[in-house]
Amino acid sequence: MDTTRIVLAARPHGEPTRDDFRTETVTLPDPQAGEALLQTVFLSLDPYMRGRMNDAKSYAAPVELGQTMVGATVSRVLEAPGGEFAPGDLVLGYGGWQTHSVEPVAGLRKLDPELAPPSTALGVLGMPGLTAYTGLLTIGQPKPGETVVVAAATGPVGATVGQIAKLKGARVVGIAGGPEKVAYLEELGFDAAIDHRAPDFVEQLTAATPDGIDVYFENVGGAVWDAVIPRLNTYARVPVCGQVATYNDTELPDGPDRVGWLMRQILQRSLTVRGFIQTEFADQTPQFLQDMGAWVRDGEVRYREHVVEGLDNAFDAFLGMLSGRNFGKTVVQVSEL
Amino acid sequence: MDTTRIVLAARPHGEPTRDDFRTETVTLPDPQAGEALLQTVFLSLDPYMRGRMNDAKSYAAPVELGQTMVGATVSRVLEAPGGEFAPGDLVLGYGGWQTHSVEPVAGLRKLDPELAPPSTALGVLGMPGLTAYTGLLTIGQPKPGETVVVAAATGPVGATVGQIAKLKGARVVGIAGGPEKVAYLEELGFDAAIDHRAPDFVEQLTAATPDGIDVYFENVGGAVWDAVIPRLNTYARVPVCGQVATYNDTELPDGPDRVGWLMRQILQRSLTVRGFIQTEFADQTPQFLQDMGAWVRDGEVRYREHVVEGLDNAFDAFLGMLSGRNFGKTVVQVSEL
Repeated sequence: MDTTRIVLAARPHGEPTRDDFRTETVTLPDPQAGEALLQTVFLSLDPYMRGRMNDAKSYAAPVELGQTMVGATVSRVLEAPGGEFAPGDLVLGYGGWQTHSVEPVAGLRKLDPELAPPSTALGVLGMPGLTAYTGLLTIGQPKPGETVVVAAATGPVGATVGQIAKLKGARVVGIAGGPEKVAYLEELGFDAAIDHRAPDFVEQLTAATPDGIDVYFENVGGAVWDAVIPRLNTYARVPVCGQVATYNDTELPDGPDRVGWLMRQILQRSLTVRGFIQTEFADQTPQFLQDMGAWVRDGEVRYREHVVEGLDNAFDAFLGMLSGRNFGKTVVQVSEL
Repeated sequence: MDTTRIVLAARPHGEPTRDDFRTETVTLPDPQAGEALLQTVFLSLDPYMRGRMNDAKSYAAPVELGQTMVGATVSRVLEAPGGEFAPGDLVLGYGGWQTHSVEPVAGLRKLDPELAPPSTALGVLGMPGLTAYTGLLTIGQPKPGETVVVAAATGPVGATVGQIAKLKGARVVGIAGGPEKVAYLEELGFDAAIDHRAPDFVEQLTAATPDGIDVYFENVGGAVWDAVIPRLNTYARVPVCGQVATYNDTELPDGPDRVGWLMRQILQRSLTVRGFIQTEFADQTPQFLQDMGAWVRDGEVRYREHVVEGLDNAFDAFLGMLSGRNFGKTVVQVSEL
């Protein structure tokens, strides 16, 4: 079986360009016992992928040059010699940016399309949902009446954070880019929604957080983080799962250097700033799937997908996501469901 | 009864000068029921006092101009009209930089000189000890075999952190200024001791932490923190109880601005950076006194005091402490024990 795949051709400097990638068609090896041949249906696009393009130590190894770009996928089983899956089964895997893949069956999870639309396994019921659930509840620990602020609030993590925080009785302020996204946050029941592009963004954030901020779910960094810091209350918690505003930066911004200043803020207000990756809390997955599955079924947590047709459009969709041109969880539909 | 006291006369800009303080003698009101008239025996000098001299919101209100500089004291009861204490009793109070004080008895704790030297109530068995105990055990949570690094390691907090970490089975690296202090850390049983003034300090820190750093107990900031960051392991914990290297700074250092860079380190290595003041953990005081009392009695935790004679010398001793010229817990002996 042939696969058409997008490989990393060069390490991007700043914003990735098309020349950093190469599309090629190669023949896959036949699947052996313990493996499955899969056809990609949905490819997930996520901000963490930008980090994998760099040759830098992070929480995961970089993608090697010439390697297929990594990514979670919902795939259809074409062949599973060991009999673990039947042809036609839909599975959650990690096939990457390609049309077909051969993967170890141990890494696959069968999806039941009756329970939820399969693409949700990449979003609200997948990695972004688990990120929101564990980061907010285990690190953020919002109490009823506290103020929770989340940026990139129409994205799959942010929107889920905000809705869970509402379910827990918090006052929730969402930050997003543009009036359409702000309107959507109001529709989701956020107590306030702010456009970070507004010239008076800082004043709006102050007005929307009259009692300060108890939990800031950090996934963007940059100017939003700068505006949030002075609003943080004593004992505020800051789960940090992303810094998407800075992923394409090639140089540090001009000074002064505020590292010491930030440490003094952390000290003076007894702040908790805690980086995490949802894999740290993988043991919460069963409870997450139970809670989130029920919330999604009951309409208590809503989700929105930004579906892009065709692997050819993955690159543009990825760039768009880094700069906020997506609206909801970005998935590439690689083949018909 | 007259008291001679040191009041804040002006808000220091940068390093405090003598002109920022004024010594005056005033007559105290007679103690009423529920109050006690006290004679100061020992005055504690602590880095947090520098923050109280500023007119800035922090975890405690600033000292007002014209007010007596605050500070914990070991004092002798001269008169307690309500009968709660007998004349001659030694108590832990918060009398500040003066020879006598009238204080509410509710804020006083009677000390038993048979159990421990009274001055230890200001150090290893007092606020600095509780800071070390709660910050290390509740936030740092060192596991046997992990590497704990602490700066200002001959100070009352740092020395206690290091010795508790050893009792918990960690590998302990202390950082201090000058060969005499480094030798003392070796005497205390630290696994390695490094002089932060050494030209190859960064290389020495790297060599002393071959397995990286799991807990960095942060009380100084500045160049030591810069050197520690790259050595922090995934899931490292950083309790932050001080930033003494920067307390006299009047401007932020030149750029580039590394705030975003620091946030990415926190993200990529799932770090926990947690500011705290020991008052947050005041409910652990009985357990602390029990554990630490036993450790001190058994010689498992040793302490060192830097005793300065006379209230007149408090100012110089305070400046010296901020720049590391003290050696151990700084106390001013204001009157004979």
